[in-house]
Formats: sequence, C-alpha cells, structure tokens
Amino acid sequence: MTRNDCAGNIARLRSWLDEQGLDGLIVPRTDAHQSEVTAPHDNCLEYISGFTGSAGMALVLRGQALIFVDGRYQVQVLQEVDLALFAVHHLHDDPLDRWLRDNARPGWRVGVPAMRVSGGSYDALAQACAAAGGELIPIADDPFDVVWSGRPEKPLGIIRAMPVSVAGGTSLDKRARIAEQLRTAGADLLVETLPDNIAWLLNVRGSDVAMNPVPHSFLVLDADNRIEWFVDRRKLGNDLAAFELSDVALAEPEHFPGRVAQMSANRSVLIDPDFTPFAVCAPIEAANGRAVMQTSPVTLAKAIKNATELAGFRACHVEDGIALTNFLAWLEREWRARCDRNLPLTELEAEERLIAFRADRPGFLEPSFRAISAAGANAAMCHYNVRPDTNAAIGADSPYLIDSGGQYANGTTDATRTLIFGNASAEMRDAYTAVLKGFLSLSMARFPTGTQGHQLDAFARRALWDIGLDYDHGTGHSVGHNLLIHEYPHRFAKKPNLHGLEPGNVMTIEPGYYKSGAFGIRIENQVEVVADRPGFCRFSSLTLAPIDLAMARLDALNGEETAFLDAYHAEVRAVLMDRVLPETRSYLLAHTRPVGERPT
Amino acid sequence: MTRNDCAGNIARLRSWLDEQGLDGLIVPRTDAHQSEVTAPHDNCLEYISGFTGSAGMALVLRGQALIFVDGRYQVQVLQEVDLALFAVHHLHDDPLDRWLRDNARPGWRVGVPAMRVSGGSYDALAQACAAAGGELIPIADDPFDVVWSGRPEKPLGIIRAMPVSVAGGTSLDKRARIAEQLRTAGADLLVETLPDNIAWLLNVRGSDVAMNPVPHSFLVLDADNRIEWFVDRRKLGNDLAAFELSDVALAEPEHFPGRVAQMSANRSVLIDPDFTPFAVCAPIEAANGRAVMQTSPVTLAKAIKNATELAGFRACHVEDGIALTNFLAWLEREWRARCDRNLPLTELEAEERLIAFRADRPGFLEPSFRAISAAGANAAMCHYNVRPDTNAAIGADSPYLIDSGGQYANGTTDATRTLIFGNASAEMRDAYTAVLKGFLSLSMARFPTGTQGHQLDAFARRALWDIGLDYDHGTGHSVGHNLLIHEYPHRFAKKPNLHGLEPGNVMTIEPGYYKSGAFGIRIENQVEVVADRPGFCRFSSLTLAPIDLAMARLDALNGEETAFLDAYHAEVRAVLMDRVLPETRSYLLAHTRPVGERPT
Repeated sequence: MTRNDCAGNIARLRSWLDEQGLDGLIVPRTDAHQSEVTAPHDNCLEYISGFTGSAGMALVLRGQALIFVDGRYQVQVLQEVDLALFAVHHLHDDPLDRWLRDNARPGWRVGVPAMRVSGGSYDALAQACAAAGGELIPIADDPFDVVWSGRPEKPLGIIRAMPVSVAGGTSLDKRARIAEQLRTAGADLLVETLPDNIAWLLNVRGSDVAMNPVPHSFLVLDADNRIEWFVDRRKLGNDLAAFELSDVALAEPEHFPGRVAQMSANRSVLIDPDFTPFAVCAPIEAANGRAVMQTSPVTLAKAIKNATELAGFRACHVEDGIALTNFLAWLEREWRARCDRNLPLTELEAEERLIAFRADRPGFLEPSFRAISAAGANAAMCHYNVRPDTNAAIGADSPYLIDSGGQYANGTTDATRTLIFGNASAEMRDAYTAVLKGFLSLSMARFPTGTQGHQLDAFARRALWDIGLDYDHGTGHSVGHNLLIHEYPHRFAKKPNLHGLEPGNVMTIEPGYYKSGAFGIRIENQVEVVADRPGFCRFSSLTLAPIDLAMARLDALNGEETAFLDAYHAEVRAVLMDRVLPETRSYLLAHTRPVGERPT
Repeated sequence: MTRNDCAGNIARLRSWLDEQGLDGLIVPRTDAHQSEVTAPHDNCLEYISGFTGSAGMALVLRGQALIFVDGRYQVQVLQEVDLALFAVHHLHDDPLDRWLRDNARPGWRVGVPAMRVSGGSYDALAQACAAAGGELIPIADDPFDVVWSGRPEKPLGIIRAMPVSVAGGTSLDKRARIAEQLRTAGADLLVETLPDNIAWLLNVRGSDVAMNPVPHSFLVLDADNRIEWFVDRRKLGNDLAAFELSDVALAEPEHFPGRVAQMSANRSVLIDPDFTPFAVCAPIEAANGRAVMQTSPVTLAKAIKNATELAGFRACHVEDGIALTNFLAWLEREWRARCDRNLPLTELEAEERLIAFRADRPGFLEPSFRAISAAGANAAMCHYNVRPDTNAAIGADSPYLIDSGGQYANGTTDATRTLIFGNASAEMRDAYTAVLKGFLSLSMARFPTGTQGHQLDAFARRALWDIGLDYDHGTGHSVGHNLLIHEYPHRFAKKPNLHGLEPGNVMTIEPGYYKSGAFGIRIENQVEVVADRPGFCRFSSLTLAPIDLAMARLDALNGEETAFLDAYHAEVRAVLMDRVLPETRSYLLAHTRPVGERPT
C-alpha cells in the first residue's frame, strides 16, 4: 500500500461516511475472529493506512484520522504511515475510548463494523461516545465491501483432520468435558468464534492464513454435546469421513449471527466478551437470552496441554533445535566467508536459509510466523519483517536478531537468538548481559501453582531496570499445539493477567532491549510449566539451541545463573550433537561449553 | 462477645428477617466509610459472630450462616467464631458473590445495609443474586439499630486542625487542585466519603476511632471549589476559627444521602465505586445525575506526599527508631533477667513497655494500630492481638514477633521485627533467611516510575518460593501522614493494583512466613519512593531500627544483600547512637555490626 493509495482509499471511505451520514468510522485491525494475523480480505487497516503491524486500530473522521498502535510498533508506524494523513496514538497509554471521551463532539455518529469489534470493546467505545454526547453505530454489513474495490475474497483454505494419536483425545471426549463445564456454568450454549478453539475442539487444522493453521469458522455447542459448525463446506473437501463429525451439523458462516439469535431465545449463552463480535452478542439479549460472560472453557482446557501434546512439543523441539543450530552454525561460517568476499550476508538471505533448514526436518509444515531477521537498527523494531527495500546487510559490530519458529505436525516452536560477529560496544554488552540475566531469572523461577503472569513478569526485567533500561512489550505468551503462536490466555506482562499457571502450560520467555535507530536484543526460549514441590511449579525448557554469549559479560553472572546456563547447554549438546549436520558440530561444541571454560 | 451471646444475637437477627420477609442479610465488617478499623457502634459482624478481624463479611440466612475472611484470618476465625453457628469461607478465593450465584434459591430476598456496602460491591452482589433467580434488597435503615439492644452510640471524637506548617499546604490550595481535576474529569461534583481524604483536604485530624485520626463525616466539593461538610458539629468544639472553613458550609451527616440526591440533579458526580455507599450512589442516577466513576482525585493527590509531609515522616521515624531500639535493647536485657528469675516475660508486658517507650518521644500522639506482640504459635496469626486469655510467655526457642507503630504529629510509623533469644530450629532459620532475602530484594529494587505494586510483589516472595514457602497476605501498603496506617490506593500484592508508584509515595515492605500452630516471622520497614535515574525510582528506608540476624543464615546472603544490610545498619547506628538511652548503646552497637564481623 503506497501513501498515495492510502490517501485515495481514505477519500473513498470518507465519501461512504457522507453517504451514511456518519461522522467517522472505527477501523479495527482484526477480523470476525479477533485474529492477530488476518487474511488479505480483512486487512482493512492496512488498506487505509499502510500499517502492517499485528495490533492497532484507526478512527477515520471527515477532517482527520488517528491510528492507535502499541509499544512494539511505535517505530514501524512512523515508517509505514503517512503522518500527513494520520496522527499516531498509543493503543494502551492513550487509547481510542479515552480520545473519544475527551474529543468527540455532541451529536457525533461514529460507526464500527459490528462483526469485527468484540462485545467488550463495543461497550467501552459506546460508553466513551455517549459520555461525550455522541453515539456509536454498529455497522452490520462490512463497509469495506463497498469502499474497497478489488478487495481480496475471503480465504478458502483446506481443512485437515488432526489424528487422535497426535491430538491426545477424541473430539467427542473434548466436547463432553466442555459440555460438562457449560452445565456447571449454568449455560445452555457455548458460542465459539475463536478459530484455534474450534480447531482444538474438532481435532482439525486449517489453512486460511499462512502460518496460522486454524480454520475461519464459527461454532455453537450445546450442553447436550451437540455442535453446529458454521464453516464454508468447500474447505472440507469431498471426504468428510476423515473428520470427527458425529453430532456435528454443518451450516454456512453467513447464517451464524442469525442462528445464534434464534438459538438464544430464553437460554443462557456462554460468550467470551473479549472475543465474541458485537454482531453476535447483541442479538442474544434481543432474543431474551442471557449472556454468561466468561473466558471460554475451550480456551482454558486447550491451554493445559495433555501428555500427548506435550510429547509432541518436546519431539518437534528436537527437530527445530537441529534446524536452528544448523542455521546458527551456517550463519557464522557464511558470514565470515561473505565478509572475506566483501559481499555481506543480508537479512533476507538468512531468513531464507533458516526456512530451508527447517523444511528439511520431519514433521515440519510451515513457519509458525514470519521470521524476524533483523540487523542493526532494524532489530530495534521488535516485530520487524524484512522487505526487499529494507533488506540490510548483517554488519560486524551490531547485533543480528533472529526470532523464528515452525509449525510441525505435533507442535509449534518459537525461539530468538541475538548474535554479534564483530565487536560489541559497552552499551550493547551491558544491555545483552541484562537481557540474559532477566531471561535466566524467569527461566529459573519456582512459583506456587496458579501464580499469574503479572506476578512473574518483573523477574525478566529486573536486571534491565537496575541499569535504567526496559522493554515495551510483554515477556512471554502461551503457544498453541500446531495452532497459534500467540495463544490466549496466559501471558507474562506488566498488565494483569488473571489466568494462573499450572503444569501443562506452554509459554515463551523473551525479554529484550531495543534502542531506536541503533540495535535490538532479544533472547527467547519456549518452556513448559512442570510440577515442582507439592503446590509449586517451575519451567522446563523446550527450545534446544545454544544461547550466544559473545556479548555477555560472563563475570556478571552469579553461580546460580552460570549453573543454569551450563546445564541448559549441556542438554542442548547431549540432545543435538549426534543429530546436527557434521559441519555444525564444531559450532555446537564451542557454543555449549561451560561458562567457566570461556574467556571472560 | 461470647459464643452464647452470638447465638442469641443471631436469633434476634433471624426474628428481624422474618418480620421483614427476608431470606437473609449480608453483614459487612465495615461502616459507611468502608473503614478498616471501626467504632464499637459499627462492629455488627463481631456482634453476631465474635469475629474481630479487620476484613470480612457474613451472610445470615434463616437456617444457616456463613462468614467470609481472608488469608490473614484463617486461624483467628477458628478461635473466635463458633463453627456450629457459621461455616467459614475464604473472602477472595471463595467469595460471597460466587456463593450466592451457586447456592441462592430462586425467589430469595437477601438484604444488605445500603449505607455500609459500596456501590461496586452492591452491583456484584446484586448480579450474583439475580443470576440465581433471587434479589438483593438494599436496606436503607440500619437493621442493627433494631436488632442490637444496647448498641454503642456513634462516636463523637473531637476534631483538631493540622497546622499548614505540618500539612505542607493550605486547604484552599488543595481544594483548588482537586476542583481543577474535577473539571478535567468533566465532573461538577465530588462526593467524598473517605474520612482520611476529608482530613487531608480540610487539614484536620479526628478521633472517632483510637489510632485512626480521621473524622467520620462526609463531604461534597463542587468544581467552583465550594464544600459542604456533613459533620456532627459537636466534634468541632466551640472555636471554629482554628479551622480552614472559608467556602465550607457545615451540615448534619444524616442529611448527606438526601443532599447528594438533590445536588446531583442533571449534574456529573465523581464517585469512587469501591468506596461510595450504595445508599449514595443509587440516588444520583435516580436524580438523573451522571456518575463519573473513578478513584477520587483526593486519594491520588494525598498518596504523593509533599516535601513537608516527607520531612515529617523522616523526622518522626528518628523518634520512632529511638523508641523501638530502646525497646529492643530493653527486651533483650529483660528477657534474660526474667528468665533467670524463672518469671518469663509475656506478650502483654512487652507491648505495654513498647507503648511507654514511644510515649516518651516528642510528637508522639498514640499508637498507629494495636501492636502485634506475638510469641510462639500466636505469631502464626498475622494480625494477632494479645488478650489476657491468650497472653503467652516469650519462650527461648521460638521467634517473638513485634509489629507496631506510632501516630506522630508529623507522620505515622509501622515496623516489624522478629527475634529469637534461644535456639532457632533449622526450619525457622531457613524461613527467616528467605523472608530476610525477600525483604532485601524488594527494598533494593529499582523500577520505572509508574510501576504497579503487582509487578514488584514477587521480588519479596521469590526466596520463599525457592524453598516451597509463601505467605497469604500482601507485601506492603501505603501509609498516611498522621492518617490511616493502611492508606489506599498503593499496595504490593499478588492481586493487580493499577496505581503506579512515583516519588513521594510512602509504603511498607513486609514479607513474612507463618506456620500454623508453630511460629510466625515478619520483617517490615517503611520506605519512601524516591527518584533514581531519569524515569526510574527506588526505595529509601524510613524505619530506623536494627534488623535481628540471630536467625539469619548469613552465608546465604549475596554480596549485594550484605552491602545493603550493612549500609542500612550503618545509617541506623549513625542516626540513633547519640539519641538512644545509654543502656541501649551496647545493643545498638552489637546489632548494627557489618555482616562480615558477625559469626556465621
């Protein structure tokens, strides 16, 4: 999307506002499933603004436009969005609802696409508009069907079955558990709009959006264990026998909101107000149904991986560790060779090579997200994705950051390493050491079962805080089982997260430091939560790849940190040494040496 | 209140339920101000249950009764409450609203005193009742005026002026700041029901409840800076000239709810939903007023102590440190002498002597809370108060815990020390060392300005978690300036607290460990938040008294911990040595030695 395109696209949207008698339209980043990664069809925010980040929203008014993005995107937004068209606000510190409360004019009519705003967000925005004397107008039909000429079609990705031997339980067993919880919650129906929840419940995986193997669809489960699945039939192919479809009635997605309204009459309907679209929430009350608002029991059940899923996670991390370590070894060799030839290695080449190493591994399906292959100042953008026009050479004296992962038939991986091939500045060494200490601190933590992410988050920040630094993103997230890389609901972050950790949760630990315009550092492992003493848990590392210590001040590590790092590297070496490429072995050997055997 | 009394009192309450056609009554612990410490007039929960803790509530139904208390009171409740009368539930883990949702029967009418339940709590309870098909009934007139024969009168404590030289600002200046914030929030009126907020705003202190120098009263401030103060005139004495009463209209407290209803007509009224009684919230909407629900700007302004208040805090902590250190030295001498005479020292004697040491100090007014003077198993009750029938001897081989503080004309203190005079078990030493390390860890923290209490809380728990222990209370609280010992809103706790810390906040840091039926440990200092590097803060200790190291495993302290402890003790010694009693000096000298000069 060029800046000129955006100006034209906004003009088209403003004409539509005029026709509708609206003063503005809220343009969410996301789709009807509140997806973090959306299909081209749903990239309406990019269409009007050029912004490609994974979170945000815009408000387009007749005479001005605002875009709201979070801390991860404060740099990127300035590069992608024309500041003559959009004023930039912070999504959390300076949110849209507060802006509306303070700035909306009496009588304003502000539209919002009813299928792409959650019931909870709608309420907050509606209250803000009302407080300013204006009104929020839910728009039932997608405005961009009219405004956006040449809009891509909705995706029709093929849906495949996940075998019970990989899923660890039949769909019928899962449904029975969820239906039982529905009855306990006093609900007659569960309305499910989260594609990963639907995929987990039905033992299927989808392909509507690359790297996000979940099917766009909707589902209603009743307390008698029956399902209506609102899915485009073309995605299922011709052989339905592969799917666990007993007691599942198929219906077209277009009929979903109407059917929910119909089924809700005088019944209790469990919806998750953070995700269920307003277009689905509103008819429940209109039909005299009672909304039971809580986190979906599917979300909660899915977050505790079963023994089979955990075995899959561990197995695919061995494959992923082989690929990542082969890549790191190749990178070190290739970087030097290319330096000698005066033809420096670039971010894009590195990313492509890493994908190739993963593609070799059994069970690998596709990347789990677009890798962040970032050199120099590009790495200061936490969620940078290299494009041909930004493709930088990997320099000697600035860190190179590689954050990547794979979707495997039996699990999903996500890991980050930050390396340097030349000389690190004192500032880089200080920051890297603090990030490493924070990474180790959280990785080594023991905590009562049920401890919540906000209680642990600062363990990963403290060493940075000690030297006056911090990072403006969460410290870690849940990971799905061949599902979404950012799985709801567990999270390590400053912001409260009320979902307690327990054995079977799979998380990432990924502190970082970013100096705008200069460099970026992040160290990330995936971990599972395991039982420790009675009533207590700890983390067990899943990721298997050397953590680079070239930038670390080893004498700043205490005995406990050194012991943990040495034990981790010993395990990496033991598991991988016989499995990596022959030309990787010397790298693996050197980079898994105990700290005490390295020069400080 | 004996158990027999309670049985009779409940019977009287049940007769009243019958007369009113109610199925039950919710009995809050607190008063119309949501006070933590209440006047005898308001101790209705104690009247029916015998429970004397500072938080809790009961639900008395026709055929059963339930009492809800938090983690601090799980032991105490079993001692005070007849389990034949009450089933005990956890106030937070197993709350009343959930119980109602799961157990209330369709058609149930459950009453709640409308002046003693906050608007926020009322809504949660009403929703819970409704979800079960029942109804919550607000009771306008206090049921205990009828039920409780011989009920104590409302207090009439004298109100005194706090000089501007101690308060650091005139009431008019403070009102102007708050009125400005009202306008910013788009509110016409502020309804204030928190006695400490009213005291701070008007530069007065009260005496309705011992140790809590705040006047029970209510107040309305308008955006033009005018006040109506609903206070019993008898509390003000005859000389009103001492008070800053310009633009303050006096009114009787009984007229408060009606007057709010009157003033709210078509106006925006700022109320704090966590504290404003339902009896005051409800009429605002009824009068077509608009409730702007947020934390009171007085709460937020008061939490950031001004330079004069901070100077007062520092000065009174010198006096308090003298008293506390004189006490600790006396205790060590006296304990041995009494041992030799085979007439062991008791908890009550120790408490009385500590009060006497404080009473000697200039500026001392009264204790800031009933001291927790607890030996042996009594110390396992975090909020134990010794009574003649529980008064235990301070034994040799079990820790003695003393948590106490003073109200001074220029500030408020709160500190805890835990000592042992004989031999500590390995278990006690492990626990004490972990509590000490947690105390030091949080005390030494540096953190971004605006960091919230839930982000820091686990620093104080980690060493305990490492050995499989924890404590079931918060880690620290704000302290008022000659106001309440537990000041809202800042708190270190597992539970989210969304109020960011900034320079001028005054907090306690007080991790502990409690082994039911065996022993209790807590170490507590009061600290102020001070600026560190740009954008960062740290804590500076206010409390000045040696931290006992008899139970600490000194070889388990790292270099940073030892350095902090040594620097703290050096400061304690430097400030106090010339000020304590001559017979205290050898104690002070011995107990402020650097760690390296002590036997491990």
